[in-house]
Amino acid sequence: MCDICVMNAVKKKMLSRRDLFRGAAMAGAAAAIGGTAATPALAAGHAAGPTDMTHTLHRNFPTFFGDPQYSEEQLFNYAEHSFNLKQLTVNEHTGTHVDAPLHFSADGASVDEIPIEQLVAPLCIIDIAARAEDDPDAQVTPDDISAWIATHGEIPANACVAMHSGWGPKVNGDGFRNFDGEAMHFPGFHVEAATMLIEETGAMSIAVDTLSLDHGPSPDFATHYAWLPTGRFGIECVANLDMLPAAGATLVIGAPKHRGGTGGPARLIALA
Amino acid sequence: MCDICVMNAVKKKMLSRRDLFRGAAMAGAAAAIGGTAATPALAAGHAAGPTDMTHTLHRNFPTFFGDPQYSEEQLFNYAEHSFNLKQLTVNEHTGTHVDAPLHFSADGASVDEIPIEQLVAPLCIIDIAARAEDDPDAQVTPDDISAWIATHGEIPANACVAMHSGWGPKVNGDGFRNFDGEAMHFPGFHVEAATMLIEETGAMSIAVDTLSLDHGPSPDFATHYAWLPTGRFGIECVANLDMLPAAGATLVIGAPKHRGGTGGPARLIALA
Repeated sequence: MCDICVMNAVKKKMLSRRDLFRGAAMAGAAAAIGGTAATPALAAGHAAGPTDMTHTLHRNFPTFFGDPQYSEEQLFNYAEHSFNLKQLTVNEHTGTHVDAPLHFSADGASVDEIPIEQLVAPLCIIDIAARAEDDPDAQVTPDDISAWIATHGEIPANACVAMHSGWGPKVNGDGFRNFDGEAMHFPGFHVEAATMLIEETGAMSIAVDTLSLDHGPSPDFATHYAWLPTGRFGIECVANLDMLPAAGATLVIGAPKHRGGTGGPARLIALA
Repeated sequence: MCDICVMNAVKKKMLSRRDLFRGAAMAGAAAAIGGTAATPALAAGHAAGPTDMTHTLHRNFPTFFGDPQYSEEQLFNYAEHSFNLKQLTVNEHTGTHVDAPLHFSADGASVDEIPIEQLVAPLCIIDIAARAEDDPDAQVTPDDISAWIATHGEIPANACVAMHSGWGPKVNGDGFRNFDGEAMHFPGFHVEAATMLIEETGAMSIAVDTLSLDHGPSPDFATHYAWLPTGRFGIECVANLDMLPAAGATLVIGAPKHRGGTGGPARLIALA
């Protein structure tokens, strides 16, 4: 976030909160994020502040299968109980979420077994938004990966390679799923791109700003079946990819950690 | 994680996985985390690698109320459908999780409204483990905070102040909840410590390695009611606080982002 954006955010918070102390604390935090105060790790590498790569989850969040996959029940409410508490029911593959290797393999790693080192990943963003604007079935190809490497250098070990197709802002409209009555139409990774990343790079995750690692009309989940059984993982419905550089950011993947999970809603925070 | 630990972890993975490519990728990742390869953000500030501060969630994870608060249903299985997928049902305040301001206020910020800047926080660890070993009802006091400041300097703006009581390793036994038939017995923050942090520091979150911000025998949730309505948030059931320095680490708080949530299971990743 730029300094002006941070300051505007701080001003907004200061005006909207009743807590007198909070304003001072937020101003201090903004100064620290801007690099002028002493928060060592932020000052060292993350002067621009964190970027939220996560969509807000709600009952009508679009899903691959088309029906709602998230609901909540208020078990306690403040008026009656003096505190608020809800119970959530959610399909693991809903909202901004992780696909663990187990999602498309008989006995691959579950989401809690993904090594913690793989959840802090150099983020490589491949921008196919211009092509996807003309062709909603566009795919990331080996040529796109080669072009990224020619510009930015080798894909780092442990990288998360993300497709930026421009689909993020469509998330709360019909255009996100883009179902024409016969098939969905949104971009994804071509299986040959996934194979290239496996064979020629140290990438351990791929991410998309759409509903699936495979593009919408895929008849066979070819990319899921090529990628996940190798022990690598995927991330779907990523937000705000347009806010980051093509190379140089670090993605912290707040994957859920329920035992034996095939994936689940995740908080993605990029440090640039 | 030290270099030897990383290498051992890598060797274990290489021996246990069938994927030929994975070994090379992991070795590359280990080299990068060790600081000898080119992953800019890691090399800049996080040479020691990430630390997972999250307990694994499962059906019998101990809860404040005593009954299980998490369950799952397998909707698709690999043998029958060629992919695995589960549906989860979870009380928001289960496992390693966030308490949003809304949890103990009528109209405070919900978990999706916590500013992203507050989810990347300087981590200050206050160690009361020796005292808690003798007294399971021990509390973090203003004196503990003053002692931390005397040793490590001011608490940074936006900090997460965490209680390390030694309760983490008890998580899968009865000693975690430690109910004697009348009350629970585990450490927490004294309300006066919470008030001091609000009035004298820029801390925006507090964290505990126990089931509640308040200690077990609390009759009134005094710390919850002092802290959360100010717009600050809490984190409960934090793991592995003994693996980090008292000052200098950065905690990335992978809070869930469901609309209007009062909190929820979170992935906590520390960068030291």
